[in-house]
Amino acid sequence: MNIYHDAKQIIDHSIRAVLPDVAVLKALQSTPLDGPAFVVAIGKAAWRMAHAAGQALGDQMKAGIVITKYGHSEGSIPRMDIYEAGHPVPDANGVVATRHVLNLVGGLTERDTVVFLVSGGGSALFELPLDGVSLDDIADTTRQFLACGADIVEINTIRKHLSAVKGGRFAQRCAPARVLSIVLSDVLGDPLDSIASGPSYPDSSRCEDVQTIFKRYHLDIAPHMMGALSQETPKSLPHTKHMITGNVRALCEAAKEKAASLGYTPMLLTTTLNCEAREAGLMLAAIAREIRASSFPLSAPCAVILGGETVVHVRGRGKGGRNQELALSAGSGIAGLEDTLIFSVGSDGTDGPTDAAGGIVTGEFMDKCKACGLSVEAFLADNDAYTLLNQTDSLIVTGPTGTNVNDLTVLLCR
Amino acid sequence: MNIYHDAKQIIDHSIRAVLPDVAVLKALQSTPLDGPAFVVAIGKAAWRMAHAAGQALGDQMKAGIVITKYGHSEGSIPRMDIYEAGHPVPDANGVVATRHVLNLVGGLTERDTVVFLVSGGGSALFELPLDGVSLDDIADTTRQFLACGADIVEINTIRKHLSAVKGGRFAQRCAPARVLSIVLSDVLGDPLDSIASGPSYPDSSRCEDVQTIFKRYHLDIAPHMMGALSQETPKSLPHTKHMITGNVRALCEAAKEKAASLGYTPMLLTTTLNCEAREAGLMLAAIAREIRASSFPLSAPCAVILGGETVVHVRGRGKGGRNQELALSAGSGIAGLEDTLIFSVGSDGTDGPTDAAGGIVTGEFMDKCKACGLSVEAFLADNDAYTLLNQTDSLIVTGPTGTNVNDLTVLLCR
Repeated sequence: MNIYHDAKQIIDHSIRAVLPDVAVLKALQSTPLDGPAFVVAIGKAAWRMAHAAGQALGDQMKAGIVITKYGHSEGSIPRMDIYEAGHPVPDANGVVATRHVLNLVGGLTERDTVVFLVSGGGSALFELPLDGVSLDDIADTTRQFLACGADIVEINTIRKHLSAVKGGRFAQRCAPARVLSIVLSDVLGDPLDSIASGPSYPDSSRCEDVQTIFKRYHLDIAPHMMGALSQETPKSLPHTKHMITGNVRALCEAAKEKAASLGYTPMLLTTTLNCEAREAGLMLAAIAREIRASSFPLSAPCAVILGGETVVHVRGRGKGGRNQELALSAGSGIAGLEDTLIFSVGSDGTDGPTDAAGGIVTGEFMDKCKACGLSVEAFLADNDAYTLLNQTDSLIVTGPTGTNVNDLTVLLCR
Repeated sequence: MNIYHDAKQIIDHSIRAVLPDVAVLKALQSTPLDGPAFVVAIGKAAWRMAHAAGQALGDQMKAGIVITKYGHSEGSIPRMDIYEAGHPVPDANGVVATRHVLNLVGGLTERDTVVFLVSGGGSALFELPLDGVSLDDIADTTRQFLACGADIVEINTIRKHLSAVKGGRFAQRCAPARVLSIVLSDVLGDPLDSIASGPSYPDSSRCEDVQTIFKRYHLDIAPHMMGALSQETPKSLPHTKHMITGNVRALCEAAKEKAASLGYTPMLLTTTLNCEAREAGLMLAAIAREIRASSFPLSAPCAVILGGETVVHVRGRGKGGRNQELALSAGSGIAGLEDTLIFSVGSDGTDGPTDAAGGIVTGEFMDKCKACGLSVEAFLADNDAYTLLNQTDSLIVTGPTGTNVNDLTVLLCR
């Protein structure tokens, strides 16, 4: 069999494993619920997650609410109300929908379970400012802190304290009903208090932290926000349970599984890759050369697997994405190595402003480029990976996949 | 025991293993010679290598010649002539010394062995143009090809064909005596035909390649060089044997050995690391986080070992070196991880234009920086790793070690 074919199978299998519906079904299968269930789904993948939960739970599901981004609903779902709202900037429709959610969970008993389905974008879509505070107040405060150079942790501390649902307050409102959160994570390292600003997760920040942050940046708290900012967020939520299913780790685990089934010894190197894309490509190529030269760290056939989200500092005017740049750069580093392949792919099926999901190269890639008179250095310098990969038949094209759990990068040595 | 102490022991042990004298002693111990031996040592480490060979061979060594850079001789060695010459620009003293070498090996028999000790800088120090060609001709031709955009492989092809000792011609002149080359390699991947331009290694380039390269760049061969450029370099040298002892692989192997003896499971990731220093630091930190989060790719206690030579694109005005930048960047990526340490060190004991050999950081490094009010981002942006590492007691200082086999980078997790 062909190493390209193996790579394609690993890509298909891994992305399938983290599709929102598959992730929700897996989670609900592993944690059967007793008693009535109420579904609350927020985020860009909310509709698909809710749809899958509805099918899995059947009649056990009594009612549900979906809040997703404009244009992200795919139709009606039995016994669920579906709202679309503003993202990335929250709007009044999101606030209205969030009120409906609080009404729904307000009257539940301890026999009930709220199945809380969280995906990327949930922080903007699921928002209700505390009494006395407006959406504009939150936006203004955020702007002021950003202008002072506050970091994201500090800004989130303020935001959680201004919100009626973030920082664990949503789960507090669900009590005495239990809360099962199923989280499709697009944040590296899966910090549960950060994903969607942690509506169902205890918050570790305190009111005095809020005061300290305002003082640090010499900002005054507007008098009408004093009341809100003096209310403590919940520090313990024993009625909640969290499952992170469709995340970059699941993506990598699926890649390992498929690689192993195809006869490659798999090694997971990291799930939090976050460096410059082209440099990750070079480093992975350096590992490839070592495997070929000395059978370290692994003997072929083997697969080195990385998950995460690299970055690109755009300096040129070309077309590309982080996965394509990583692959292009790796291609130059594995020139001449036989039976060696590197691919990098975005699990959402899109990479940068292109119609490709990523790039795939082998030890023959540089020969292809030379035969066409194309210089990898020149295309990299212009951030134009797409054009070169396209001309050498080295793009991965999947179309939108309906999930987004970061990227998968794999080195295969046969 | 302390993880810092372990790191220091690994650094000491690894650098010691690739010192020129140790490398030569190891090589000669593993390959006992019979019959008279003649030492020819070229390069910046030539004196130390020759000195060690003299001691190891004793009376078996009949005569020897050392050609090293100005200021690099450390005194006389019994039965050896020591010459100093120009580097990186070859000069007449190098040519005179090279003639002496050819005289020495010219009268040997098949019972004799030439112990040829090669270290970095050998290409400039060991040179004799072919009859009819001058050092200036070689320099001019090199300049012309560089100006046309020729690559280093093309330029070396021309240079080998203009030289009486490069491209295997020195070994050819030694016949019928056997040649044992002991190479201290500072070139990643140890290409024996490139190190010092391969005086004892068969050359794969042909006279017609030379013609093709001249044509490609529309340059004419000066009539007086025609004769030289029509002589073929040797394609087979069965009387030669090559040992690469003090190279980056030996450096990494020694690190593995020491890490294992200290109880860490070692893993060699690559010996050809060549990406941007700070990005290698981030990627290694991503591996550290994975080890801490999931025990992949290894369970602690473990050591991930990399060798090579990263690069720094200087944009700021600060002070630092590639190893220091790698360590600084890694320090930000392992913030908060317990029992986790990353170091990067130049085996020559110098890193950039500083008195440090590299940097060493742990999971507590960022706390130290914060406590001092120092921003890693700001120092990285100014390429000022030295200042920050110095202020946080995170520099590695060894002084010049007398060897140069690239860098060693290690992640330790206890």
